[in-house]
Amino acid sequence: MRQEFHGVGASRGSALGRARVRLPHALEVAEERIGRDQVESELARLHAAIDTVRGEIHVLRERLHGALAHEVGEFLDLHTLLLDDPELLQGLDALIRTGHYAADYALRLQRDRIASVFEAMDDAYFRSRVDDIDQVIGRIHAALHRRDHDTQGVAGEILIADNVAPAELAQLQTQGVMAIVTSAGSALSHSAILARSLHLPLVVGTAQALLKINDGDAVVVDGGTGTVILEPNADDLRAHRARVRELARERKQLHRLRREPTITLDGVDIKLYANAESREDVAEAHALGAAGVGLYRTEFLFLQRHELPDEDEQFRAYRDVVLGMTGRVVTIRTLDLGADKADKTGLALRDEPNPALGVRGVRLSMARDGLLETQLRAILRASGYGPLRVLVPMVSATEEMRAVRTLLDKVAADLRREGHEIAERVPLGAMIEVPAAALALPAFIGAVDFLSIGTNDLVQYLLAVDRNNEALGDMYTPLHPAVLRVIRDVIKLAKARGKPVAVCGEMAGDPAFAPLLLALGLEEFSLHPATLLELRRAIRGLSLERLRKRAPALLRARDRAGIEAWLRA
Amino acid sequence: MRQEFHGVGASRGSALGRARVRLPHALEVAEERIGRDQVESELARLHAAIDTVRGEIHVLRERLHGALAHEVGEFLDLHTLLLDDPELLQGLDALIRTGHYAADYALRLQRDRIASVFEAMDDAYFRSRVDDIDQVIGRIHAALHRRDHDTQGVAGEILIADNVAPAELAQLQTQGVMAIVTSAGSALSHSAILARSLHLPLVVGTAQALLKINDGDAVVVDGGTGTVILEPNADDLRAHRARVRELARERKQLHRLRREPTITLDGVDIKLYANAESREDVAEAHALGAAGVGLYRTEFLFLQRHELPDEDEQFRAYRDVVLGMTGRVVTIRTLDLGADKADKTGLALRDEPNPALGVRGVRLSMARDGLLETQLRAILRASGYGPLRVLVPMVSATEEMRAVRTLLDKVAADLRREGHEIAERVPLGAMIEVPAAALALPAFIGAVDFLSIGTNDLVQYLLAVDRNNEALGDMYTPLHPAVLRVIRDVIKLAKARGKPVAVCGEMAGDPAFAPLLLALGLEEFSLHPATLLELRRAIRGLSLERLRKRAPALLRARDRAGIEAWLRA
Repeated sequence: MRQEFHGVGASRGSALGRARVRLPHALEVAEERIGRDQVESELARLHAAIDTVRGEIHVLRERLHGALAHEVGEFLDLHTLLLDDPELLQGLDALIRTGHYAADYALRLQRDRIASVFEAMDDAYFRSRVDDIDQVIGRIHAALHRRDHDTQGVAGEILIADNVAPAELAQLQTQGVMAIVTSAGSALSHSAILARSLHLPLVVGTAQALLKINDGDAVVVDGGTGTVILEPNADDLRAHRARVRELARERKQLHRLRREPTITLDGVDIKLYANAESREDVAEAHALGAAGVGLYRTEFLFLQRHELPDEDEQFRAYRDVVLGMTGRVVTIRTLDLGADKADKTGLALRDEPNPALGVRGVRLSMARDGLLETQLRAILRASGYGPLRVLVPMVSATEEMRAVRTLLDKVAADLRREGHEIAERVPLGAMIEVPAAALALPAFIGAVDFLSIGTNDLVQYLLAVDRNNEALGDMYTPLHPAVLRVIRDVIKLAKARGKPVAVCGEMAGDPAFAPLLLALGLEEFSLHPATLLELRRAIRGLSLERLRKRAPALLRARDRAGIEAWLRA
Repeated sequence: MRQEFHGVGASRGSALGRARVRLPHALEVAEERIGRDQVESELARLHAAIDTVRGEIHVLRERLHGALAHEVGEFLDLHTLLLDDPELLQGLDALIRTGHYAADYALRLQRDRIASVFEAMDDAYFRSRVDDIDQVIGRIHAALHRRDHDTQGVAGEILIADNVAPAELAQLQTQGVMAIVTSAGSALSHSAILARSLHLPLVVGTAQALLKINDGDAVVVDGGTGTVILEPNADDLRAHRARVRELARERKQLHRLRREPTITLDGVDIKLYANAESREDVAEAHALGAAGVGLYRTEFLFLQRHELPDEDEQFRAYRDVVLGMTGRVVTIRTLDLGADKADKTGLALRDEPNPALGVRGVRLSMARDGLLETQLRAILRASGYGPLRVLVPMVSATEEMRAVRTLLDKVAADLRREGHEIAERVPLGAMIEVPAAALALPAFIGAVDFLSIGTNDLVQYLLAVDRNNEALGDMYTPLHPAVLRVIRDVIKLAKARGKPVAVCGEMAGDPAFAPLLLALGLEEFSLHPATLLELRRAIRGLSLERLRKRAPALLRARDRAGIEAWLRA
């Protein structure tokens, strides 16, 4: 029977599909033996599944962009490590070859065997490791069954769950989930921001849907209005199709904005830079008319490999970005690796109790002999090919910035002496993401040429809330009076001192936050190309003067509810 | 031959002893078998050593006070967990019983066996776990040998090392180390602060000492002047004895300050509250004339046990503190447990990637049904016995404070209805340790009756530096312009609004920082009784007026060097 549920539309889009209620987690398999003659085919079946999973993870890794690449990427890298682990693989083979177990049951046995080693030691230690193993084994198990049945069931599903963690989102989309409906959550939560950047329809705050909808039910979800319809009728289906057409039309209109300026209703020019880390990102940024690259991430050169990229390899990568942007400025961020990124070069530390408060970014670059110098040489050499800036991550004190400046000057002198053609002047900037750097900016700003506010980490440190920690629910939010005040103060001081300042966190890429950032004085955004046109459209519909008049009310807000009310008004 | 080395005196005291150069880490043991008839005695020898280690850890745990209890405690708790692990113990027994290995070699084999399981999986995962196992096995090994030889060698040693981590200090002292000499470090480092609070002589910055001094050499260390003498002559020994006498005399004079007021040279009364978590702390605080208890930690009621303390047990503990302070105010902090504290009740989460940014303090108290309500009931019931305040840790937003206030009011109404005699009014305060709480204080201060600045965590979050992460060297420091500015702003606003404000981090307990905190406007300190008299003496030698005149210069300092220069002046 048709039923309608109403939640909050958190990410636009209309989806029609069968419901999948919550995600299966446990691995329940009955004991199953195979004949001696089936051993080879069972082994082949298992290894095909493992290869499938390896491929899936690889594809997923490639599809990730921007902040997601960093958040989800680490989990995926760990899973790849486990997949390649000889102990796991040999154990499975032995169980099938000598135990004559079916692949499913071998997986289960091997999982229990590994888990028991950790669990026997002590829960306090090893539970988190068991979780990773469970996830990898679960993936292989799912792949085994995807080969047995058709793949119809995976595509076109709509997930109905109590809540969805930010780190799950990209994975769910790749698994074929078309839309998500949750009982908990807010339209301004971290998950909602990510869903919008993935263009994955999301409705939050509908407890009824989880209670009433069963696995396999037909469901229509409207992520715009927040409506969820169980057992839709002909009218509902017509409305769904109309919405899909309307969204396609809109997307086409959006496409026309490629060649338009990003200008507010009252005629103020706003600069939209792109965050990029691949050739495709750079090409897209160029095609969409980005003002330049505001944040070029260099971690990808260092991840997934066993040796460090040398100066020439780095130089070619940076030069290609500069050439790709045909004269628009390119901002290259020095290595922002930390213990939470699973690099294979052994650069990052492994056993930090709080990696987010550990040897990350410039701290790591300076701790390893020659690392920063090689990178700065490569960047400066690329500066001969077009306008370039250097951006330093995780700066917390003036001393660090001075040390980088000294090294940059030395490298420039060395390169000139060696006969390289480099730019007259390469601006040096700092990421503002450590609260101390933001708060000590008056002592600090003389040492930099430009600033980029990294709201993702800044919010994390200001609130002491790890944004990847699901147990904290929606405590991670930029909508806190302290966050707004810090952003406002940094922008104000930078402008007073004539230093360009951008915001480059997820907040900058979400049109929902554009009014707020404009009200706080921001005139430069740096975001992934995926949402650049949507942000441009949003900004073209806003009046800067009106927003700035409303800024005092925003800064008077005492809590999140007050800020959300301001955003809604 | 006599040699003299000069470093920086970082913690006063004079020590004479044999040198131990760096700490042994590796466990190198040759294969050794025993006869069948020796099995039982070897098993007895091993278990005696394990019991010794268990006892040592227990004693060490008990001796820890204040901040140290939290920093070092977690390591010790993990070691206790490993010591009690049946897999470890049974494996050892089996090696001795059936393999006829000597206990030393059994330890080595069992260590390698456990380590190989982790190392085979993947370095990226398991190295940190191997470190813990190494430390526990190393402790047992040391205990085995302590039984074989006399214990002379342990007591009276002077550690010469490149650097010493804060978390090691208390452990080293308990192991009998009399003084420490390091090549790296600063007198204002975290380790130096802890060494002073432990009254453990420390000289930093003497690279020569590490190069020239060998294991077993006789050494005299003067932690006041920073002088280290190798092979001291008769004059040196006389001078050492004179210093020891002088220090004893000083301590006697200090003792006389028990009954003196804490008053600056220009007659301003400064309040010194005590941080406490045991009956002994409270008694000492009372005897030393503390103004009250500024921070009573309640974690000890929840740690090291399997079930939660009920309301009555908590009530009795809090009432005893109130009675012990005979009318001076007692500030009880609600549970500040987090994932980094190894409780056995299962309250805290286990697998947070960044526990310092996770479900800690009030977040945990609110996440567990009834936990905060039971504690508030117990605290309010104790308020019938003397002046009491409630302090809430890890507050980051106004919403949290409002929620606690609502619960406190409800609990008060419930208790009155039930006929309990409780205080008319129990002030409710917030720890200021999350940067967002400090920065949003204007929106926030209306919701609190008093404030306590927890500099330990505040510095950690402001700088994004985990203070227990050795790899960060001395990056953890309160001497950053942003830290000073935040402390100054919080004090200023609190005073303007007539709300009492104290500092309760390690910074408050170290006389070296007293001029700085007084200059920033502070008039209430909360510190462990161990250094209360030293702080009183320091304050009695300072002129508040002169310091406040010098405050603008302090706030103009652009970096750590500038702030250190101010402190020296």
